[in-house]
Amino acid sequence: MSDKTPAELAEALIACPSVTPATGAVFACLEDMLAPLGFDVDRRISGGAPDGPVENLFAIRRGPEGSRHFAFAGHVDVVPPGEGWSSAPFVPERRGELLYGRGAVDMKGAIAAMVAAVRDIPREAGTISFVITGDEEGPARFGTLALMDRMRALDAIPDLCLVGEPTSVNRLGDMMKIGRRGSVNAWLEVAGVQGHVAYPHLADNPVPRLVAMLAELDAWQLDAGTDWFQPSNLEITDLDVGNPTTNLIPALAKARISIRFNNLHSGASLSARIAETAARHGGAARCVISGESFITEPGAFSAIVSDAVKAETGLEPEASTTGGTSDARFLKDFCPVIEFGLNNATMHKRDEAVVLADLDTLARIYRRVAEAGLSR
Amino acid sequence: MSDKTPAELAEALIACPSVTPATGAVFACLEDMLAPLGFDVDRRISGGAPDGPVENLFAIRRGPEGSRHFAFAGHVDVVPPGEGWSSAPFVPERRGELLYGRGAVDMKGAIAAMVAAVRDIPREAGTISFVITGDEEGPARFGTLALMDRMRALDAIPDLCLVGEPTSVNRLGDMMKIGRRGSVNAWLEVAGVQGHVAYPHLADNPVPRLVAMLAELDAWQLDAGTDWFQPSNLEITDLDVGNPTTNLIPALAKARISIRFNNLHSGASLSARIAETAARHGGAARCVISGESFITEPGAFSAIVSDAVKAETGLEPEASTTGGTSDARFLKDFCPVIEFGLNNATMHKRDEAVVLADLDTLARIYRRVAEAGLSR
Repeated sequence: MSDKTPAELAEALIACPSVTPATGAVFACLEDMLAPLGFDVDRRISGGAPDGPVENLFAIRRGPEGSRHFAFAGHVDVVPPGEGWSSAPFVPERRGELLYGRGAVDMKGAIAAMVAAVRDIPREAGTISFVITGDEEGPARFGTLALMDRMRALDAIPDLCLVGEPTSVNRLGDMMKIGRRGSVNAWLEVAGVQGHVAYPHLADNPVPRLVAMLAELDAWQLDAGTDWFQPSNLEITDLDVGNPTTNLIPALAKARISIRFNNLHSGASLSARIAETAARHGGAARCVISGESFITEPGAFSAIVSDAVKAETGLEPEASTTGGTSDARFLKDFCPVIEFGLNNATMHKRDEAVVLADLDTLARIYRRVAEAGLSR
Repeated sequence: MSDKTPAELAEALIACPSVTPATGAVFACLEDMLAPLGFDVDRRISGGAPDGPVENLFAIRRGPEGSRHFAFAGHVDVVPPGEGWSSAPFVPERRGELLYGRGAVDMKGAIAAMVAAVRDIPREAGTISFVITGDEEGPARFGTLALMDRMRALDAIPDLCLVGEPTSVNRLGDMMKIGRRGSVNAWLEVAGVQGHVAYPHLADNPVPRLVAMLAELDAWQLDAGTDWFQPSNLEITDLDVGNPTTNLIPALAKARISIRFNNLHSGASLSARIAETAARHGGAARCVISGESFITEPGAFSAIVSDAVKAETGLEPEASTTGGTSDARFLKDFCPVIEFGLNNATMHKRDEAVVLADLDTLARIYRRVAEAGLSR
């Protein structure tokens, strides 16, 4: 194991099919990489139907008493390959400068780079851990959350965490994520009394109340954005009455909204405001929080990542908060979190591929980040 | 014919099945009643698919040169009988004080009363006509409108018109209709550009524009009512986006409204205002006018009807403008129109029935109304 290149490590992981939820072989493969490096590997299965069971892996190599703890986080599950690949998606294949296979960039390549990175960091530098879930692309209810429970139980809370999601856009190193927006969806409903349009006094039309509720929600300026986030945004995504009869006043009117929010809000604060607004207009709201926002404001940690990237690529990574959600939304409860990884151009697509040289570069970047993170 | 009671005349009409559109036998039956009384009977078939053909009957007995012209209007078509009758719906049957059969009150009983009424009015009193359609309960596109074309061609425009719809509610004579509201429905649409809620700048959500449009329409106070009409009323009857995906901004948002309006508006004026409002909010409206309003303000004609009702029943009929539409919405273009007829409790229901004695009373009321209408 100790003599394998990052590309060879990535090939070993890609060769284990692991569509969400990942189980078994791919975890055994990773365990076989980490155990020889002195890591205590803890593989556990958590949860039950419908969002489980889920397999996860926590590995830790403790440094000297009182040393800092740097965590690499990621996932070994992959999205389904779909059709039309030029080569078998779970048979890694090098063609020219590229290595093809499902998970090449999202994110088995990054995990291979993490393994290669820690191989060259002495135990004395500090505590290093791997927080690896088999359910990042799925419901994620028993993935990183279960790992965090285990880390609490093991008294293994990190000081810094780097998530290896593919954040680079055009060239390796051009972007890191220092935050993500949160997401909440709400199902709104107003009930009334059905009747004939010619006798409105005998009916109670719920639609005007829903319209007034939606007009108020649409006019709501959640915020003007922050230094690091664009303004939080609310969209009305559905309206539904389902009344085909022209002279009938309907009994029920429904709508749905979706909010992407920055760190000036929480899912709970937004849900409360939505519920209050709905109630004030005689309706009700059911809110589902898909994820909280997180932000690691530019500072010491982002400087470490930025310096490492610049040293290896010459690029200064843009500190971005765009895009969807990631497991960073959970890990931010432990410590500062930044996401940095491979080029995301082919992620979730057919013929997913990584530039072979990028795997070596990323391993060197990760080593720099971990060493700097442990030493400060 | 001349010795038949109103009940016997009604039985003859009920015995001719005539679910909309009425044809043939029921018209022949009515022609056989009117021709012996000196009426020129003009039966014609108008229109084509899908709203025709429709059979109609216009009968006129002209009085002396320069005499006034009083028209009785109505329909011989009936709504389908449905299930569960105690006796066959098209076999008239007397049980106790009642005569059962489809059309007993809506409105073959009234037509029988009209025939009995004119039987005793001398030709010298003036011109009397019957404006009878076979398609009042249907689309009505080739019914009374076609009859009115024929009346224009025959230079037979009446001075007054009484429509025999069943307007009485609890007792014969308690209500007449001096007007009806008009009706317009509008289908509203706003188009946008579909997209992901995380990237709203790449999409164009049509829902807020529809919501703003509906809020403005809902706030629209059409009027405060008139002496004879309740306020015109707008109801939002449907909302439709049909987007099941929480993170998708939809491409199209739709709604439907329904307006019942008094004589301060017209279908055209309302349609123009709706279209202007929709356009101002970036949308479009398709308006369908189901009927214009009509009003015969209380005055000489309503006094004639009221006096006749009071003389025969002791009741003073309430002058109402409630309820749905009737052929009065067309005939009001010719002359003052009032609707008065039998008790409507059983209309359109199973076991439709008329109080036998009411038929005699109604015949006497109609005679009084026609004679007074011709003499003033």
